[in-house]
Amino acid sequence: MPELRKDPIHGRWVIISTERGRRPSDFLTEEKKSTGGFCPLCEGNEDKTPPEIVAFRNNGTPPNRPGWSLRVVPNKFPALRIEGDLNREGDGIYDKMNGIGAHEVVVETPVHDKTLATLPVEAVERVLLAYRLRIIDLRHDLRFRYVIVFRNHGSAAGASLEHPHSQIIALPIVPRRVTEEIEGAKAYFTYKDRCAYCDIIRQELQSRIRIISENPAFVAIAPFASRFPFETWILPKVHSPSYEQMEPSHYQQASQILSTVLHKLYSVLHDPPYNYILHTSPFPQQDREHYHWHFEVIPKLTKVAGFEWGTGFYINPTPPEEAAAYLRNQE
Amino acid sequence: MPELRKDPIHGRWVIISTERGRRPSDFLTEEKKSTGGFCPLCEGNEDKTPPEIVAFRNNGTPPNRPGWSLRVVPNKFPALRIEGDLNREGDGIYDKMNGIGAHEVVVETPVHDKTLATLPVEAVERVLLAYRLRIIDLRHDLRFRYVIVFRNHGSAAGASLEHPHSQIIALPIVPRRVTEEIEGAKAYFTYKDRCAYCDIIRQELQSRIRIISENPAFVAIAPFASRFPFETWILPKVHSPSYEQMEPSHYQQASQILSTVLHKLYSVLHDPPYNYILHTSPFPQQDREHYHWHFEVIPKLTKVAGFEWGTGFYINPTPPEEAAAYLRNQE
Repeated sequence: MPELRKDPIHGRWVIISTERGRRPSDFLTEEKKSTGGFCPLCEGNEDKTPPEIVAFRNNGTPPNRPGWSLRVVPNKFPALRIEGDLNREGDGIYDKMNGIGAHEVVVETPVHDKTLATLPVEAVERVLLAYRLRIIDLRHDLRFRYVIVFRNHGSAAGASLEHPHSQIIALPIVPRRVTEEIEGAKAYFTYKDRCAYCDIIRQELQSRIRIISENPAFVAIAPFASRFPFETWILPKVHSPSYEQMEPSHYQQASQILSTVLHKLYSVLHDPPYNYILHTSPFPQQDREHYHWHFEVIPKLTKVAGFEWGTGFYINPTPPEEAAAYLRNQE
Repeated sequence: MPELRKDPIHGRWVIISTERGRRPSDFLTEEKKSTGGFCPLCEGNEDKTPPEIVAFRNNGTPPNRPGWSLRVVPNKFPALRIEGDLNREGDGIYDKMNGIGAHEVVVETPVHDKTLATLPVEAVERVLLAYRLRIIDLRHDLRFRYVIVFRNHGSAAGASLEHPHSQIIALPIVPRRVTEEIEGAKAYFTYKDRCAYCDIIRQELQSRIRIISENPAFVAIAPFASRFPFETWILPKVHSPSYEQMEPSHYQQASQILSTVLHKLYSVLHDPPYNYILHTSPFPQQDREHYHWHFEVIPKLTKVAGFEWGTGFYINPTPPEEAAAYLRNQE
């Protein structure tokens, strides 16, 4: 059973995968690892994953067989385990709990060598709708406090499988960075009586120097204090705290802008490794006024070094105004 | 002039290097970049760096000439500029200031193909004494609020030059991660009336399951909530808030344990890329009771992916108890 451990000073939680227990030699050979041509996420290999939780299928094909356009399956090597109760425990000055959680994989297409950046917008919409379905379902489990949705593309961005996929992890605690973001937005709201993200959108739509793309419901910007070159945020224009509570008709527009942004990054930076992360409210019933859901897309072009680890302070060699211009001018 | 920008929600600062202004094509070719055999930090090339600030030299050799064992020079491509006054400015909802600061390079040896892990302990001691001298000097500049000292080893850890070196950056603000760590330690102190780090040391010396190395004045441990495989903290056993105010005789013992830890990592993980960061009090006159200076050494064996970026929550595949045993048992 994996273990959740809390740092007594920073309050940050860590998942220690006691079962995987990687030894020094595992790290030495990592770079050379390859699946040898076999992919458990490809169509026809449905029996190589745990049974599907959700699938979009045509023609009433039976579950766990070919004939799907998207599948959500449990991760075969989960960071956290779904079974069991949450046990909290002390160990002298330290705190830990057992690693309860859900870890799911969204297989975005049956075809191995496609990529989300070049798939039709309908495929992106299926992905966004699958996120919604899973968040709604996982929120019913009272053991979970937060559901994080993210996508790692390219091995430099931490993807260990090539087949296009995203991941969903449900956690028994609200992670610290999420709390910080929400507290920051709350502090702004308390001071100004306005949502910080709404203010950002207003200023960006006016100055237009950091706009990357726009449609009636969404805007994509290079944030003013971008940590990374070509960092991109995608925000709904109208205040909206929770991703999964968005008006159904808006998923199509969200797909359109996400698809556009990924395609622009793909073209300008030649299919760069990247991560994107869905930022949404932990508790849909609260955080109504001050939190504003969004996607953050982080191309992995520079290396995070000692300075960044020590300070949380980033050095970005590409001004966001220039990054936005490159991306905006790209078809 | 580089610009310091603050994120309005997270309060995190970013350095935007407007002058370097890296374009998309710069990132595409980065991996293939090479200095073509010429190294500006090697002995004999003293005129290829700005004039030295400090040097350890034998036989009264003149400055900026061969004959040194360690040099500290200004970074030729600094992230921040030393000249000018600090100007704070708003831009609608955003805040920025000009990028004032110091950025120095500690050239640790005249010989290009050495590495700190295998240099004699005297060389490591020179490095630690150079850190001390520079911190004391930079603290006199009233524009600066924090001095960060770090070392990037290997290109995966962000080192852009091969020649053994560390970096020192003086900042006009206290970075957020530093404030968080100090606030965390303060909260613990307020609750328990004891230093959190002293409590950690006490428990670790008792259980001994996470001890990597020890000498009369220092202990090296794999922290209970290690974020990364083989993460190592080196702490003074006796409470000590500021690195540069340590008893002079203790630098020798600090060098001995740092040298031992780097050598163990070098042997067990075959010269892995790593970062180490000196964590010390921003204000030596305050933080006397609750803060405890230390080094954090982070081997770069895994990739930070979307989950970590989104949550600040790490998945560590090697339990610290196992990592400590591997390192402890290595000569």
